[in-house]
Amino acid sequence: MEPAETGRRSYAMTPDEFRRQGHEVVEWVARYMERVEDLPVVSSVEPGEVRALLPEHPPERPERWEDILADVDRVVLPGVTHWQSPNFFAYFQANASGPSILGELLASGLGVQGMLWATSPACTEIESLVLDWLVELLDLPDRFRSTGAGGGVIQDGASGATLCALLAARERVGGAAALGRLVAYASTEAHSSVVKGARVAGLGEDQLRLIGTDPTSRAMDADALADAMADDAAAGRVPFFVCATVGTTSSHAIDPVAAIAPLAEHHRAWLHVDSAHAGAAAVCPDLRFVNVGLDRADSYCVDPHKWLFTNLECDAFYVADRRPLLAALSVLPEYLRNPASESGAVTDYRDWHLPLGRRFRALKLWFVLRHYGAEGLRHHVGQHVAWAQELADWVEDDPRFELAAPVPLNLVCFRHVGGDAANQRLLEGLNASGRLFLTHARLDDRLTLRLSIGQTTTERRHVEAAWQHISELAGPA
Amino acid sequence: MEPAETGRRSYAMTPDEFRRQGHEVVEWVARYMERVEDLPVVSSVEPGEVRALLPEHPPERPERWEDILADVDRVVLPGVTHWQSPNFFAYFQANASGPSILGELLASGLGVQGMLWATSPACTEIESLVLDWLVELLDLPDRFRSTGAGGGVIQDGASGATLCALLAARERVGGAAALGRLVAYASTEAHSSVVKGARVAGLGEDQLRLIGTDPTSRAMDADALADAMADDAAAGRVPFFVCATVGTTSSHAIDPVAAIAPLAEHHRAWLHVDSAHAGAAAVCPDLRFVNVGLDRADSYCVDPHKWLFTNLECDAFYVADRRPLLAALSVLPEYLRNPASESGAVTDYRDWHLPLGRRFRALKLWFVLRHYGAEGLRHHVGQHVAWAQELADWVEDDPRFELAAPVPLNLVCFRHVGGDAANQRLLEGLNASGRLFLTHARLDDRLTLRLSIGQTTTERRHVEAAWQHISELAGPA
Repeated sequence: MEPAETGRRSYAMTPDEFRRQGHEVVEWVARYMERVEDLPVVSSVEPGEVRALLPEHPPERPERWEDILADVDRVVLPGVTHWQSPNFFAYFQANASGPSILGELLASGLGVQGMLWATSPACTEIESLVLDWLVELLDLPDRFRSTGAGGGVIQDGASGATLCALLAARERVGGAAALGRLVAYASTEAHSSVVKGARVAGLGEDQLRLIGTDPTSRAMDADALADAMADDAAAGRVPFFVCATVGTTSSHAIDPVAAIAPLAEHHRAWLHVDSAHAGAAAVCPDLRFVNVGLDRADSYCVDPHKWLFTNLECDAFYVADRRPLLAALSVLPEYLRNPASESGAVTDYRDWHLPLGRRFRALKLWFVLRHYGAEGLRHHVGQHVAWAQELADWVEDDPRFELAAPVPLNLVCFRHVGGDAANQRLLEGLNASGRLFLTHARLDDRLTLRLSIGQTTTERRHVEAAWQHISELAGPA
Repeated sequence: MEPAETGRRSYAMTPDEFRRQGHEVVEWVARYMERVEDLPVVSSVEPGEVRALLPEHPPERPERWEDILADVDRVVLPGVTHWQSPNFFAYFQANASGPSILGELLASGLGVQGMLWATSPACTEIESLVLDWLVELLDLPDRFRSTGAGGGVIQDGASGATLCALLAARERVGGAAALGRLVAYASTEAHSSVVKGARVAGLGEDQLRLIGTDPTSRAMDADALADAMADDAAAGRVPFFVCATVGTTSSHAIDPVAAIAPLAEHHRAWLHVDSAHAGAAAVCPDLRFVNVGLDRADSYCVDPHKWLFTNLECDAFYVADRRPLLAALSVLPEYLRNPASESGAVTDYRDWHLPLGRRFRALKLWFVLRHYGAEGLRHHVGQHVAWAQELADWVEDDPRFELAAPVPLNLVCFRHVGGDAANQRLLEGLNASGRLFLTHARLDDRLTLRLSIGQTTTERRHVEAAWQHISELAGPA
């Protein structure tokens, strides 16, 4: 424990070692970018296989950097699914990009902790600025700008955003004391994080109503919502929160926010719009139908870490009025008091989400928006949508396949007409091929393939190759 | 929106551009490491000053990388407080280190999303392994190993860990339906995240009892806890959760876990031990008094991002029985179903915390443990504690100062004998000097200076210089 143990003065990596090894890692990542397209997209390791390649006990002595980096090739690489492959069409993307990775590198190197404005003013001010930029880029309502009564914050993900919206809504109607009477609403197609968030916030299962959807659009049935809210109110319960989804995970259905908003207003319920994936489409002026009704929402979220080329974890969460959010989440112990906070002139983001400590989250988003410019974002997002429309046409033109849902944006849901077993075989065959990765949903209680076109480096040729492969592997109709 | 708009095929950074610009950023970080010691530790910008240096509107056209990086020097650097300076003695540290930064870089470059084992097996298996390594390095109870009924997960921070412990505890006594009768306990000195977490979980303010502390040790008064729990139980309430703190933020007080554990057991309450900062001390065998009683805890957390040289966000959270945690947080929609999860043979970390999506969080911790080895961790943590003991002696030997609390580890709480105004002047003078940064607490209702010795690159000479500067700036007794 004493320096005398080994005679070494420090085990910290020196700046020169960091320089040398850092260049190696940059080189590794650059080579990864070059070859990821050719790697099998889905990892085929078995449970326990990765761990079995590594020592069961931690090293007593420091290890050499060469050995550590060698294990990345030997152990890590075969054990990961390549989310950054242009042939990744599964789930929704979790995009990295060059400027974003470099933003993360710089944020890690600076190593600042931005819990308070005072603990690193740039960390807070650039976050507010960049989120105001995003309001402009996505043409969101002005009420979400930090320069008014509302504002934005970077959450780790949409799950955090939904939970914080629930907590702000709960606060507005009396906090924990009111819990027993509260009812929240979302559609049956809403993301699982709504169920999780409601549970975390202390709502019982019977206090979250999952409203049915229109059989064709799969969007929330606003009339059913109206009935449910009226029934609850008549029974003395308090409808306090509605989550509308713009672009559901299963099929990209878009809830009718403009029809939902007046219902929420009538009951003074908080309206949260979860646009985690689809919201990014609004960088393109002709896709701004995703924003309809937003001007009446209390809160909204979109994930730049999905479809705006910014690494996890980066969800942009906006509120029209920040007071209930701060009232729900602010706790001020003496050791965090400081003159800037007490002046009221600054934003302390620790009061805008669950964590206290926080990285310099905005840096990578700032870099991405500057690297691409509005023009670059429109270009790529617009292309993804255009290619999805093309793919939808190909599906429709092939008698062996059918579209399983409308394709408003970049998610194509389709199935082989041969039934669940045929689709299961097809899905497994495609993913086992290593040439692409797509996932599934159940729509109309039938197994459906989901193909999301949105990876940072996906080009039209990757979509064509995916379709060709699907087409080859599919049996006859 | 169409490619024709500009004729460009892609705005994505090519691997070669990434290579070139990545080397520049590595160089920038290496130079930052070299010069951070000489930068004024605390940023002196005024509210709004950073934002005023940047364009109010987002760029329409892509910007050049040189311009982006130039703004890091021009705008960011003056606007951040240097948490990675060896002269940073404030709060608790949020340590970066070379291997950790490179782990973040690689994780960003790989860009995998580890919500499920199936979405990148290595991301999950290395996390489980590394957390088992940490059990061994810190000599934690075997019940926290992933190979038994319990296991660990990387949370974003201790706030998340505390909240998840609360939710698991709530689940064990009946979930949201039981909420109205539940009571939680922590000391008056517990971290603010306990108050925040209890509020999030739906407890009213009168459902969290803050138990008084011993006036000398500032540790929770176990007798007072026993009385409070007995009173609540007698009144028909359900004592369901106790948070014991090992190393409080204000003064590093250590709650008597061994005395608290039987009380929790008697009432079948969940015992969570928040050792967010102090837990790291257990890398040194002679400091393992921080683990006393842990073998009876239901959950435990320690933050490698504080005192184990691993960048934010990295909290190691352990449970002795993972079932209540999973029962509280698991929601399984169709689009996440997969054969590996259904086999029961794998861990899906999305069910162990609030977020769904997650980065490759374990990579940086794995790199740090391998770079330092157990030997290196002991060396640095042991030195920090030894220097804090030295500083405590210097304080005691100087008639102008007094120790305000015992110094069990690496946090020295002291004050000038001249009263609050003198200490306030001293604190402001020191932090305005740029030569060091320390923060304050109120102990015995008196302003107290906190000096935490734990930064990755702090050497004995920095502690000496800090004391010399304090000594110079302090007036006569």
